[in-house]
Amino acid sequence: MKQNLFNVYFLCFILVFVGTAAAKDADPLPSWKDTASRLAITRFVQEVSTTGSAGFVTPAERIAVFDNDGTLWSEQPMYFQLAFALDRVKALAPLHPEWKQEQPFKAVLEGDLKTVLSGGEHALLELVMATHAGTTTEEFEQIVRDWLDSARHPETGRPYTDMVYQPMLELLAYLRANDFKTYIVSGGGIEFMRPWSESVYGIPPEQVIGSSIKTVYELRGNKPLLVRLPEINFIDDKGGKPVGINQHIGRRPIAAFGNSDGDLQMLQWTSAGVGARFALLVHHTDADREWAYDRKSPIGHLDKALEEALAEGWTVVDMKNDWKVIYPFERQD
Amino acid sequence: MKQNLFNVYFLCFILVFVGTAAAKDADPLPSWKDTASRLAITRFVQEVSTTGSAGFVTPAERIAVFDNDGTLWSEQPMYFQLAFALDRVKALAPLHPEWKQEQPFKAVLEGDLKTVLSGGEHALLELVMATHAGTTTEEFEQIVRDWLDSARHPETGRPYTDMVYQPMLELLAYLRANDFKTYIVSGGGIEFMRPWSESVYGIPPEQVIGSSIKTVYELRGNKPLLVRLPEINFIDDKGGKPVGINQHIGRRPIAAFGNSDGDLQMLQWTSAGVGARFALLVHHTDADREWAYDRKSPIGHLDKALEEALAEGWTVVDMKNDWKVIYPFERQD
Repeated sequence: MKQNLFNVYFLCFILVFVGTAAAKDADPLPSWKDTASRLAITRFVQEVSTTGSAGFVTPAERIAVFDNDGTLWSEQPMYFQLAFALDRVKALAPLHPEWKQEQPFKAVLEGDLKTVLSGGEHALLELVMATHAGTTTEEFEQIVRDWLDSARHPETGRPYTDMVYQPMLELLAYLRANDFKTYIVSGGGIEFMRPWSESVYGIPPEQVIGSSIKTVYELRGNKPLLVRLPEINFIDDKGGKPVGINQHIGRRPIAAFGNSDGDLQMLQWTSAGVGARFALLVHHTDADREWAYDRKSPIGHLDKALEEALAEGWTVVDMKNDWKVIYPFERQD
Repeated sequence: MKQNLFNVYFLCFILVFVGTAAAKDADPLPSWKDTASRLAITRFVQEVSTTGSAGFVTPAERIAVFDNDGTLWSEQPMYFQLAFALDRVKALAPLHPEWKQEQPFKAVLEGDLKTVLSGGEHALLELVMATHAGTTTEEFEQIVRDWLDSARHPETGRPYTDMVYQPMLELLAYLRANDFKTYIVSGGGIEFMRPWSESVYGIPPEQVIGSSIKTVYELRGNKPLLVRLPEINFIDDKGGKPVGINQHIGRRPIAAFGNSDGDLQMLQWTSAGVGARFALLVHHTDADREWAYDRKSPIGHLDKALEEALAEGWTVVDMKNDWKVIYPFERQD
C-alpha cells in the first residue's frame, strides 16, 4: 500500500511537471519578433506575476486597459464606427426624404466624404445621433451585428472584425493566461463594441468601456425597454479615459495600451500608480501591410503621446519591425 | 503497473467524490429558516446551474444584482450615507463659518434633523455636494475609510459595516459558489461603497454600481489626479438602475434583490428576460431585531414593488419569519 501511495504521488508529480513544462514551452507571442518591445512585455508580465518578486501584483489588481481603434484593430481610411454611421444613413434615407437637402446627410448620400468631414465635430455628432439613437438597446445590438455580417472594408474587402491585430490578440491571451483582467477603454461607442468584443477579443461586455449616449428605462405595455436618446452621455477619450476607468473599474490599471494622443491621459494615469507599471503605444509604421501615420494624421493623431513615451521610457511598438504579421488572415502557420 | 494505475484512478475518484459530498452536505444558508423563501432561492440556483436542466444558464450569464440600503445592510433611522454626510458637515464646519447661518448646514450643526429633512431633495443635494465633492478620488476613499473606522450607529453602537444582514452574506456566497457574479446596484454613492464592498460583501469595486458625481482628470505638476466636482453625474435609482446595469454590465441579470420601490424597475428589467429568472424583495417586518416599515416609510418606501411582487409571484422575504438571525454579531454558533 505504501508503495502504491508513493506511485500515486510520483505519477501526479510527473503529470503536473510535464503539463507545466509543455505550457511553458509554447510561445505565447508567436507573431512578435524578438525585439525590445516583446522583451519589455514579457519582463513586465513575469515581474508582476511571479510570487516573491519585487514587483509582484496580486491577481485582482492585474488590470490591463486597451484602446480599440488603432490599438486592437485598424482605423483607416476612417474609424470603422464612422463607416457604420455612413452606412446607416444610407439605410435610413428612405425614411428621411429631407436628408437629400440637409447637410451632412446630403453629402453622405452623395458619397462626398470630404464635405462630411469638413463639417467637423458638429457634423459627426449629428450623424451619430441620427444613426445611433431612437432604437432600443436590443434593436441597436442587432443592427450592429447585421452590419458587421455584411459590411466590408473598402480597401481589403474583408469583414471589419477580420482587421484586428494578431499580435495584440496574442498579447490579450498572454495577459489573461497570467491572471490579468483585460478591458477595452475606447472613444468608440460602448454599445457598438459589446456585440462582438467577446467573440473577437475574448473581452466580455462588462469589461468594455466606451463613449455612450443617454438611455432611458421605459415600459411599453408591460415590456420594459431601454431606449437610446439623441443626447451624449459620456465621451471616453483623452481625460475621459481615466474618468471612465474609475467609473467602471474603480481600480487603477497596472498596464495600458494605446496608439494616439487620445490615450495619453490613460497612459499617464496608469503609469502614475505605485509599483510595477507598463505603458505601450502602437506606432503605425507599416504602409505596406497596414498604414503609416502619426503626427499629421487627423485619425489616430499621435504627437504628444509619442513625445511623452520617449521621455518616460514607455514601450513604442514599431508595427513594421516588431510584428511578424499584422492580421490573423496573413498567418502562415 | 496496471494495478497501480487502477489504484491511482480509484484514489482520485474517492478524493473527488468525498470532497464533493462534503461540500454538498454543508448548509450554504444556515441563517435561513426552512421556509418558502429559502426553497425558492435554492430551487432557482439548482435550476440554472445544473447542466441539462431546462433552465440551465451558462456561468457567464449568471449575473445577480443587489440593492444595498435595506437589502444588504440596514437603512434606519436614516440612510448610512446621510449619517456620513452629516458627520462630514460637522468635520468641515470650521472651514465654513458661513454654515452657522445657512440652511441646511445650520440645522445639521444644531442636530436638528427634522429641519434638514424638511428641505427635501434640494437640501440633501446641497449636503452631498458640500461633503462629497472638492477632493480627489483617493482622498475621498480615505475619508470614507476613516469615517467607517470611527462612526457608530446611533441605536446599536456598532460600526455601520457590522449592520449587514447575515442571511444575505450567505446568499451572496452561495450564489458565487454556484458561479454567479454578484453586483451591487445601489442609489448610494459608487465611491462611498467601493472602499469596503469587497471586505464586507466579497464584491470587488468593479462590481459596484451606484450614483455618482462628476469627476475630471487633472495634472497637478506632473501628478495625474481625478477631482470630484459638485455636480451630479448619475442617479442610480428607479429607472436609473436598469440604465446603470446596462452601462456597467452590458448583460441583463438573471436574479435581482431589492427592498423598496427604488428597486422596482431593476426587478422588472431582470424578470422580463428570457429563461429562468429570480426576483426577491426583503420586507422589513422585524421591529424587535431590526425595524418594521414599508408603505408609509420615507426611507425604503415599499408599496408599488410589493404589489407587483405579489402579482408576479416574486419572492418576498419576511425578515421576522424567514431569518434565524439578522446581523452577524447575533450568531450563536
